[in-house]
Amino acid sequence: MTTQKDVAEKAGVTVTTVSRVINDRGYISEKTRNKVYQVMDELNYRPNAVARSLAKKKSNILGVILPVVHHPFFSSLLSYLEEYAYQNDYKVMLCNSQMNAKKEKEYINMLRAQQVDGIFLASHTLDIAAEIKVDLPILSFDRKIEGLPYICSDNDQGGKLAAEHLLEQGAKKLAYIGGSLKLNLLSNQRYYAFKERAAEAGLTVKNFQCQLDSFNRDQYQQLAVNVFKKNKAIDGIFASSDLIAAAVIKVAQKSMINVPENLKVIGYDDIELAQLYSPEITTIRQSAENIAQKSVQLLLKLIAGENIDRRTVLNVELIKREST
Amino acid sequence: MTTQKDVAEKAGVTVTTVSRVINDRGYISEKTRNKVYQVMDELNYRPNAVARSLAKKKSNILGVILPVVHHPFFSSLLSYLEEYAYQNDYKVMLCNSQMNAKKEKEYINMLRAQQVDGIFLASHTLDIAAEIKVDLPILSFDRKIEGLPYICSDNDQGGKLAAEHLLEQGAKKLAYIGGSLKLNLLSNQRYYAFKERAAEAGLTVKNFQCQLDSFNRDQYQQLAVNVFKKNKAIDGIFASSDLIAAAVIKVAQKSMINVPENLKVIGYDDIELAQLYSPEITTIRQSAENIAQKSVQLLLKLIAGENIDRRTVLNVELIKREST
Repeated sequence: MTTQKDVAEKAGVTVTTVSRVINDRGYISEKTRNKVYQVMDELNYRPNAVARSLAKKKSNILGVILPVVHHPFFSSLLSYLEEYAYQNDYKVMLCNSQMNAKKEKEYINMLRAQQVDGIFLASHTLDIAAEIKVDLPILSFDRKIEGLPYICSDNDQGGKLAAEHLLEQGAKKLAYIGGSLKLNLLSNQRYYAFKERAAEAGLTVKNFQCQLDSFNRDQYQQLAVNVFKKNKAIDGIFASSDLIAAAVIKVAQKSMINVPENLKVIGYDDIELAQLYSPEITTIRQSAENIAQKSVQLLLKLIAGENIDRRTVLNVELIKREST
Repeated sequence: MTTQKDVAEKAGVTVTTVSRVINDRGYISEKTRNKVYQVMDELNYRPNAVARSLAKKKSNILGVILPVVHHPFFSSLLSYLEEYAYQNDYKVMLCNSQMNAKKEKEYINMLRAQQVDGIFLASHTLDIAAEIKVDLPILSFDRKIEGLPYICSDNDQGGKLAAEHLLEQGAKKLAYIGGSLKLNLLSNQRYYAFKERAAEAGLTVKNFQCQLDSFNRDQYQQLAVNVFKKNKAIDGIFASSDLIAAAVIKVAQKSMINVPENLKVIGYDDIELAQLYSPEITTIRQSAENIAQKSVQLLLKLIAGENIDRRTVLNVELIKREST
């Protein structure tokens, strides 16, 4: 196996120089640097990243903790986080907490032990703040956690837009179907803003919540069945995700309720399914790409020791399609 | 910050003993081991995983290289890979190759430098075999790569089942819509087996392929539009993924073609969308969970230096729903 010594000999420099080039320490002329890199390529020498991270006290790894990797919004977010991390010479270590507080805590400690440089944390457990020791850069997504900066889409604006759109479309009997409001997530504001805007128009909102494990497709459909059983008059539904909206539309169609003629449905996220579904789903778009790009920027700043705002809120927009 | 020395003093043992417990080396009595762990907990001491991996020459990290993380089948596979890795005290480092051969190669080298213990490789690039130096355990998914063991679902059986089901349902004008057959993937066998089984019944199969970048939803819909424009008579379609099947059904409905009355559509994978779609999509189920569980088992064997079969093929099954 090729060693730094081999590289040094072939490049006609000292081992110290090779080590400095690899670890990017001390002054090295551009000419020498290029020569060393060239020889490293010729000899196909790969510096040991583990040893390097010990030397540099930097792993170039970002930890990403998600509640449910296979949820379309989170898998899209993950895909973009990986892309922007890669563009910045960072690798992604993935943690799928499955909304299990114990696993989430273990993972945070595991990532600390692994010496990741920073963590993107989308926590969907009942209690976590107490568990987190903030001794490395952590960016929280869609949740306020004491001592951590956070990023989210403009859930308040999203709820308002959803209400205004359904009102414009003539809906009078409104309902909201979403994840459990018991989870202390900023996305709950989608409901409160929706309800508030509806109240301004003199309308009330029936509120239906999934159980805590709010990423279960069968649960969505069962919930939708119950909604229609008890509330035949509902003519406008705001679902807190496109997946829930799809389940609602499917159950409505099975119940001979025409969408959008008799029932207008609007989702949230704008995952691929929203456009692929038939009818195409009107939704409030939060851009997974923008969130990922901004999150990587913020984490790199934190890692560099710079200050960032406690709060970063990204715009959302109404995407009008066929379900309203 | 707490050190091994602090742990040693509080536990009343030598630093060497603490180090042995942490790195699981040399003989340590159960009593001593428990005492050290207890003190580590009390002092909240986290051994440095990076240093430990240098000492043990083991990182307990699996590299996972996927072509498109946000594709529902791959995100589900990733979710289960993470789950089974976690159960075996392994972490997952994610690489999203985006079907870019250069990125894929960089990643393999990056993972080698990172000293991951093994790699799960789902390669969707035109040429890769030449690029891979097999000097660490690598399991290839759905692709034969020289010198690597591979795992896949029974694509041959899947193609046969799809053909037999469409024939049973009375389809006479068959078409296949799938990813590019130029990619040297084992999943291409779905088409060949489908075509062969149809031929036995005296039927031919029109073959439509996406471009190389075969994970683009808009491309699926455009392809479906072209299919129906030129081939009004088609009454049975086998799509190589549920996503493609959904695009086909959507375009058919827009073209006033009733599914399943006038057109029977069967997909592949059995992603959540298949059951969420309206009509529910008949599909050939390949279990992401079984593939992930078996893959982690195989990688752990390779890492332990055990021999495994060059070829591991997992069963598929027909899931009859509403689209046929």
